Amino acid sequence: MSKTFEKLQPFLDKSMALQTARILFEWDDQTVAPFEAAEYTSKVVGILSDEYMKSLINDDVRKLLKKLQEEKEQQELTDTEKAIIKQLAKIYEQLESIPPEEYRAFNELTSVSSRKWAKARKDNRYEDFAPYLEKIINYKKKFAGYRVKGDKKPYEVLLGDYEECFMIRELDIFFDKVKAEIIPLLKEVSKKAETIDKSYNYLRYDTEKQREFCKYLAGYVGFDFNRGVIAESAHPFTTNLHNHDVRITDRYMEDNLESAMFSIIHESGHAIYEMNIADDITQTLVGGGASMGMHESQSRFYENILGRSQEFWEPIYDKLVAAYPDNLSKITLEHFIKGINKAAPNLIRTEADELSYCIHIIIRYEIEKMIFNNEVTVDKLPEVWNQKYQEYMGITPATDTEGILQDTHWSWGEFGYFPSYAIGTAVASQIHACMQDKMPLDNYLKEGNLTPIREFLRDNIHKFGMVKNTNDILKYVCGEDFNPDYYVKYLKEKYTKLYSL
Amino acid sequence: MSKTFEKLQPFLDKSMALQTARILFEWDDQTVAPFEAAEYTSKVVGILSDEYMKSLINDDVRKLLKKLQEEKEQQELTDTEKAIIKQLAKIYEQLESIPPEEYRAFNELTSVSSRKWAKARKDNRYEDFAPYLEKIINYKKKFAGYRVKGDKKPYEVLLGDYEECFMIRELDIFFDKVKAEIIPLLKEVSKKAETIDKSYNYLRYDTEKQREFCKYLAGYVGFDFNRGVIAESAHPFTTNLHNHDVRITDRYMEDNLESAMFSIIHESGHAIYEMNIADDITQTLVGGGASMGMHESQSRFYENILGRSQEFWEPIYDKLVAAYPDNLSKITLEHFIKGINKAAPNLIRTEADELSYCIHIIIRYEIEKMIFNNEVTVDKLPEVWNQKYQEYMGITPATDTEGILQDTHWSWGEFGYFPSYAIGTAVASQIHACMQDKMPLDNYLKEGNLTPIREFLRDNIHKFGMVKNTNDILKYVCGEDFNPDYYVKYLKEKYTKLYSL
Repeated sequence: MSKTFEKLQPFLDKSMALQTARILFEWDDQTVAPFEAAEYTSKVVGILSDEYMKSLINDDVRKLLKKLQEEKEQQELTDTEKAIIKQLAKIYEQLESIPPEEYRAFNELTSVSSRKWAKARKDNRYEDFAPYLEKIINYKKKFAGYRVKGDKKPYEVLLGDYEECFMIRELDIFFDKVKAEIIPLLKEVSKKAETIDKSYNYLRYDTEKQREFCKYLAGYVGFDFNRGVIAESAHPFTTNLHNHDVRITDRYMEDNLESAMFSIIHESGHAIYEMNIADDITQTLVGGGASMGMHESQSRFYENILGRSQEFWEPIYDKLVAAYPDNLSKITLEHFIKGINKAAPNLIRTEADELSYCIHIIIRYEIEKMIFNNEVTVDKLPEVWNQKYQEYMGITPATDTEGILQDTHWSWGEFGYFPSYAIGTAVASQIHACMQDKMPLDNYLKEGNLTPIREFLRDNIHKFGMVKNTNDILKYVCGEDFNPDYYVKYLKEKYTKLYSL
Repeated sequence: MSKTFEKLQPFLDKSMALQTARILFEWDDQTVAPFEAAEYTSKVVGILSDEYMKSLINDDVRKLLKKLQEEKEQQELTDTEKAIIKQLAKIYEQLESIPPEEYRAFNELTSVSSRKWAKARKDNRYEDFAPYLEKIINYKKKFAGYRVKGDKKPYEVLLGDYEECFMIRELDIFFDKVKAEIIPLLKEVSKKAETIDKSYNYLRYDTEKQREFCKYLAGYVGFDFNRGVIAESAHPFTTNLHNHDVRITDRYMEDNLESAMFSIIHESGHAIYEMNIADDITQTLVGGGASMGMHESQSRFYENILGRSQEFWEPIYDKLVAAYPDNLSKITLEHFIKGINKAAPNLIRTEADELSYCIHIIIRYEIEKMIFNNEVTVDKLPEVWNQKYQEYMGITPATDTEGILQDTHWSWGEFGYFPSYAIGTAVASQIHACMQDKMPLDNYLKEGNLTPIREFLRDNIHKFGMVKNTNDILKYVCGEDFNPDYYVKYLKEKYTKLYSL
């Protein structure tokens, strides 16, 4: 180990410990903590967050980082150490250019504005949220302005925080292709969707049995219960303390069979990624997934590409029917597969089917681009939102609650985040395509043997954590750069076959 | 606020946050964390523990503490601030006199020895644990030697870590009284105990129903679910992040009705104490219970004095019968009360009844005193242990597993801890006696109205946290010093009546 890096290690360790504590408090808050705890616990979390920042952002670390970025030092570093230095530099770049008092004011603003958003969404009053949104946008423009370099656009600074490999040029090409090919397909499919009777999904499903079956599903796809736990929370999520402690949550609704099942497969996809990260990089700055997009690619690979395929359900559909014979004994596997893949234009992103999902993202991306190009003012956003839903989906939200107020992201200042969902979806298809060339993937599914699939993902993607970025991984696995053709091809083939178009 | 104290505050806040994080990790480890997490998580906890120590033990805090201990500064301090300074001084006294490398070596030793103890207990091989116990004792003697002052004995240094108001003189008077009065009573009671048929307790009791009833019981005695949660763990315990987040665990066994019920009442007693600590001292160094003994007095007050009385069960016994009609419909309330108070000499402290419990403590206290007076060597301890059980209880352990190896405390170096259990029990009786003078306590129980009881404890004991010590509280509540007569009187009256002696 380089001697300079050795000096950095205690700072990294301390920041890791404090960050892990913050993660545990967050998990605990969502799953266990009593109702009245928050006010007092937030004082604890505030102090730990300050200490976390101080452990990374200080003169000692700054000097060591600078030294480690010098060419001579770089030569002595391992790939992992280089990746850690790159990640640390990214943190410095994100935070150091912003005056601390502005950063603090912004954090105070978002903690208020996220509550204002929740209230405005409930009351269907965009005008109550708009002044906060405007302030958030102004801060984000200012911060992006501080950080912008070379010929990058301000919006690209934000995009880069979530996915460094995809700037406006790449996203435009990607999304133009999707728009051109998927919007017509969605229209065709939706005409036929009405013929699929999905009423079985909304019968009464005992939640205790759902809990049991979801636990089974998690284990079935490869969630390792020696290294992870499942709990319940208002919204399903995945978190982890390190690669030997990965936690997912689910939510069980009595009148919906699918919801909890596909949530658990989705979160298991995230969890398997974290569990497979190598022991020697967990608990380091590069011990997470390569990017938001890569993480999402894995959850969606499990949820949609595997989880919504006929091959996946062939060996286990009987077990599901056996859990709910009254509701499902007359629903054939073929019927069930059509049901879980029913697609139609819809207003709510989080409830969207696989086919229309990307359209929701494109709408948000186009609006964010307009915002940061100063092509739209905050008061006009609902109008633009509704126009785009009409244009791409043929439907218009009746209220802002089911329109522009539906997502929490902007209320936290998270602009540039949405595209990573779409990137993940497309990356998943690309990886799927090259995996099919390399292994009898469908046969494995039919045999109920998901181990070779998980092992492939581990050895080719997961174990690297953030040592490789999205493009590195795609080249490593597939031998080519990101290519949205696979995604479009996948959707076309799948839906053409399913709907006999 | 004193300006010097103001300078101390950030250090106290930081140590509070780090300590709260440690508590959360400990809770999580016992209740949630997956099997394989420990190895990696312990690295996090180790760093947080180091940071906790550094946040309190450093030159800045040392100087501020010294200044705050000066007479002039003391005059400016509130009672709470004075108590905090006293507590901080205690931490310095405990740690500063011990060379850091010895302290570290001791901690490493106990983390090994506690595992060695568990193995030795399982294998019934005292000789495997003895070498570790000897090392621990040597460290404790050495550390006590560093800290001993004035005419105190080394063992009293250790006693004082758990209960500052009870030294050897006080304990000897207390325990001599108990031995003289309770040992004969136990013998008499145990003769009659055989006539009580308790077989109903060991029938099959559905654990899900136990969970439900225990939750009901916790709420019934005053556990506030807005400020607390119940989980499960191998051994029931109580912990808290602050007074608005207090957590208890229980363990449910299908073949034992009582176990989980009295554990939940016991832990609820601890929890109610913590929940009632005043808002302005929670999250400070004096935001916990006054002492181990005071804490135990509250759990035992709820578990034994209230929870094992006929008055307590009168309004709710029907509910218990309704939960298990097959097992309990023929068991009258009177029979049940005799059952839960069945007493007899026994070998295992944690399974002991109310009457014999104190004898277990006395045996441990006498042995610890011998150890620190250099009156016994480690190899002779099983012999001494067995002799004392024979002398006081009339029974001898068949194995060391059910003899000297039964408790975990010594393997952690916790000498001087046991007496606080007995102090708590006796303090509970004394408080009970003076509460009966001040309120119609039995009537409240019969009416199922425990609120006035809880409020009395809150206003006279709980809210003060560590601002008052055990003696202060007894004087405040009862107008007199600790007096073991109440305890002896309570046991004699209760068992004479129950067993018609």
